[in-house]
Order: sequence, then structure tokens, then C-alpha cells
Amino acid sequence: MGGTNIKSGIVETSSGKVITRTSLPTQTPLGRKVIISNIKKSINGLMEYAKKRGIKIDTIGLGCPGTVNVQTGEIMGMIPNLPQLKNVNIKNEFKREFDVPIYIDNDANLMGLAEHKFGAAKGFKNCLFLTIGTGIGGGIILDGKIFRGSKYAGAEFGHTSIKYDGRKCRCGNIGCVESYAAAPAIGERTKSLLRKGRKSILINWLKGDLKKLSNKLIFEAFKKGDRLATQVVEEVSVFLGTAIASAVNLLNPEVVVIGGGVGEAGSKFIKIVDSQVKQRVNPSAADFKMKQARMGNDAGFIGAAILGQNLSINSPGH
Amino acid sequence: MGGTNIKSGIVETSSGKVITRTSLPTQTPLGRKVIISNIKKSINGLMEYAKKRGIKIDTIGLGCPGTVNVQTGEIMGMIPNLPQLKNVNIKNEFKREFDVPIYIDNDANLMGLAEHKFGAAKGFKNCLFLTIGTGIGGGIILDGKIFRGSKYAGAEFGHTSIKYDGRKCRCGNIGCVESYAAAPAIGERTKSLLRKGRKSILINWLKGDLKKLSNKLIFEAFKKGDRLATQVVEEVSVFLGTAIASAVNLLNPEVVVIGGGVGEAGSKFIKIVDSQVKQRVNPSAADFKMKQARMGNDAGFIGAAILGQNLSINSPGH
Repeated sequence: MGGTNIKSGIVETSSGKVITRTSLPTQTPLGRKVIISNIKKSINGLMEYAKKRGIKIDTIGLGCPGTVNVQTGEIMGMIPNLPQLKNVNIKNEFKREFDVPIYIDNDANLMGLAEHKFGAAKGFKNCLFLTIGTGIGGGIILDGKIFRGSKYAGAEFGHTSIKYDGRKCRCGNIGCVESYAAAPAIGERTKSLLRKGRKSILINWLKGDLKKLSNKLIFEAFKKGDRLATQVVEEVSVFLGTAIASAVNLLNPEVVVIGGGVGEAGSKFIKIVDSQVKQRVNPSAADFKMKQARMGNDAGFIGAAILGQNLSINSPGH
Repeated sequence: MGGTNIKSGIVETSSGKVITRTSLPTQTPLGRKVIISNIKKSINGLMEYAKKRGIKIDTIGLGCPGTVNVQTGEIMGMIPNLPQLKNVNIKNEFKREFDVPIYIDNDANLMGLAEHKFGAAKGFKNCLFLTIGTGIGGGIILDGKIFRGSKYAGAEFGHTSIKYDGRKCRCGNIGCVESYAAAPAIGERTKSLLRKGRKSILINWLKGDLKKLSNKLIFEAFKKGDRLATQVVEEVSVFLGTAIASAVNLLNPEVVVIGGGVGEAGSKFIKIVDSQVKQRVNPSAADFKMKQARMGNDAGFIGAAILGQNLSINSPGH
């Protein structure tokens, strides 16, 4: 469940194979009832698909931004892209509708779980996952399980501060890496350099229309060695490298996986972020792999599909 | 085992009660052999004390700075204050000398364990501990156990960066909170303000001799409401607050315990640090307690004494 679309699918939980996938608009501005009805519509569509083909559905898994009480199913705390779902108990909304167990968790946690079970972090017990898009989400796998902290509020990697007197973040904190290295900040920085009259292949591509600038174009220009785009991406690698090094110094993971639109910018990007982290991290903790996520847009609902198997209800810390 | 002194004691492991304590100079400049011989001297002294009084010694526990492989007993990585012990295997050095099991871990991990079992973090399962002195050490307790990360290199809270383009730290990183909020940085900042001719009660106390300035005096002046000292301590609370908020956003602990010389500056200091963190942290994670450490200088060896009971050798992640 995202601010723009509800991405969903039927997943073979033993292999992570996606049998079918769909996407529906969330229609966020239309409010809570419409959003919930759209989620229901997504599930109903998949249920019908399964019924027709004799596919047995064992569980329904849901992922959403914000802090999620995985025990009760309540969505808590800030949900900047989906504020209408604050304090909604999704499990209660749906439990009368569907006769299979329903699980729900934070979306970045689930993406991390999917990468751990089937993707870039497969075979590693301790993993830091980050997804860089409109915001920066985090997922932590410790001893093969999602780590959520005492009250499901952990793994908020995007709100690691990289400057105590830096930019004000929408979360209330100051200097959050999300304010420096997520898609909007990358776009703004590039625009500001272009407005200063800096030369760039982007000027030809955009034909003067800065509104057409996207992160995709910036990373294309970076891959082609464009100087302006390279400067922007190198700055981003310093911001990300600082925050990742701090997290690695605390968690000492075996692998750091970067996903989301920005994370999928390619191996050249992953390499310069890796190099920044390796320069900054405590030497004892430097022996980790940095990898690009492999599951793409499917990661969220694949993680949701296998959540039921991986939830130790007795251990709130996990 | 510290850079200046080897603090040791005999501890009743069920209660944490200290039966006796001693302190010997480490004599760091005299090199590895002398240091190890001094550690042995400390242990021998306590062994004799125990023998005379019929006290049964079950285990020997050791704590030292740096990264420690708790399985093998090897001291790895950087040990800024005790570089002579790098790559030394303390367990092997001593196992022929003493006929009880020997355990060793990072000192801040052990202080955190002691606070968790008997001190300020008692009753909390998830705890972030920090000790602020010459440097800033960290200890993480998750589900009641020391969390060390994949290769024993985790919990390095002091090397959380609070400024991506900030001060160069001795660890190689940039902007580490240790470079801003540990005792030397607090002293330097105060001196630089005094040199600018700022008024302060400290000038009377020092009678013009800046060399006599200590963190103790600075915090005394802060407690008396001295404006210059208050400014310095408020700046420190911003630095610490930034780093603690980032760690709390990742770990979502129930309690944050601050120890070490600076941490023991008193409740007024703890309160302003707490207020900084609460302003910065993700609202979902803000429901934690911040407390001053209770075990003082004994924390390290009390943690070492109970390490054997609390070490799950099968789980390297813990």
C-alpha cells in the first residue's frame, strides 16, 4: 500500500515466485474509506484469480508505510504518504471479509524480508536494507528475523541525521538523510545547479524544460559520465555513506542492500556509495557486502506474502 | 582494562554486589608484556584475597576497549587507548595460569550488561547504553542479551556521524559524535570560549590557569547556572541528542542509559539531553526512558564477572 498505488500479487511462498501481480490507484485524496475499499478491491481481484485457477490462498499479507503493531494490526505513528490510515486497524477492517489469516507490517521491513529470503541478502543472517524513493525506508534483519525494536518503531534508517544543524525534515528531526538523498532532494539539487547555468547533457535532453527532469534522467546522465550529474550523485553518495556508516557501526551487518527507484540506479552508483561507507566505517565492521536489491517493485508484496511464516508472535522485539 | 588503569574486583554474580575492588596502573607506554603482566597481577591479587576468605571464584571476566571476538578471546580492530593489545588473545595468555573459565568482551558491552542486570536498565529488555569519557563507547542489549553484530564490531555508538562534512575522527570517519561530545571536545570548546574573553565563574575558579580546567569544573559551573558552561553543555546536548535520536530511530529501545565521567554530570544534564532526543526522534519511538547510569566505575568489571552466565556461545550475533 503506497501513497500512489496499491501493488499486489499472488506469491508462491516457498519460492517467492510471483504467480500474478496487479496495481490499483490508492486514490489517497479521496480519504480513508475509499483507500480501504481500494485495498479490498485489490484483494478481491486476486482472490477471484486464485479461485478460478484452483490456487489455495493460505494467508493475506499487507505492507504499509509507518509504524505497524504487527500483533494487533494497527497502523501507528506518522505515515507521511498515507496519513488517512493513521490509527486504522487493517486486520479488523478485513477479518470478517476473508477467511484466511491476515498479517500486516511496515513496507520496508517486508522488502527487507523478501530480499533476505529470496533476493540480494539471501544466505546472510544480519542485513540492513534501505529503499530510496520519495523517502528512505529501512529494514533490519537480525539472526534471520525482522528486527522491529520494542514498539515496532525501529529500522527508521531514513531519519538518521547526517547534520545536527541541517535541513528540517518532515518528521520533525533535523538533518535526516531522507532530506538529502531521497528522490526529491536529488531532483532539487540538480535543478539548482542547472539554474546556475552549469553545462550538462541534461540540458539537451530536457530541451530547456526543467519540469521534465527526473531521477531516472539524472542517473542516465551519471552513467554517461556527465559532470554535473556525477557531482550530484557523488554528493548523494557522501550523504548516504555517512548514514550507512553510522548504522553499520551500530549493527555490524553482513550485507547492506539498497533498493527503491534510486537504489536501482545501477552498479556504478552502488559502487561509489560502497566506497564512501568503507572509507567511513569502523575498520572492524568494514567486512560487509553492499548490494543492489533484486526484487524490484515486487519486494513489498512478496515480503507480505511470507510474513505469516516469519512472524514470531511471542517475541515483540522481532 | 583501560589505557590508564586496570580496575578489577570480586563480584557476587547473583546480586552484582562488589566484595572487593582494586585498581592498578596499566603502564601502557611500557608495552604489551608489561600490560599483560599487570593484568595478571590484578587477577592474582584478587585470587589471593578470595583464597584467604574462602570465596569460590567461578569465572574470570575481562573487559577491554576495541572489538573482541568473544568466542576465541582475541582483541581485534582499533584500540585507540591500548593499541599494544591489538591481536592479542587474552584468553590464551591466561588459560594456563588460572583453572577457571575466562571470558572477555568489549568494555562498553559489559557496562551495558551490568546496567541491564543490576543498574539503571534493570527490567528493560531493549537498552542502548553509552559511556562518555575520553571517548564515547556504546553497548546494546536486545531481548536481554548483549548485541554485538555479525563480527563483534557493532554498538560503536561513539562513531555515529552527526555531520557528514564535520571533524575528522581518530577512527577515520568524519563527524563522529565522539569528536564533539566526549570529554576532550567539551574541554576544548570551553577553553576556546574562555580565551575569547567570555565571562564565567570558571575564570575565578581557575585563577587564570586554563590548564586546570576539567569537565568536572565545567559541569559544576553548569549546575550553578553559569552562562558560558550552560552554552557548552547545551551544545553538547545537541550533538548527543542528534546521535542518540538516530540510534533510537534504528533500535527503538525502551531505555537509554548514559554513563561515564560526562554521563555522571547529573540529572540536569540528562534532562537536557533527553529533551533534545525527544524533539528529534520519530514520534513512534519517543516512548523511552533516559537514565543516568548507576554502577559508576564498577560497571565494567561487574559486567565482566557476569559475562559467563550471559554468553550464548552458539549465537555469534548475540
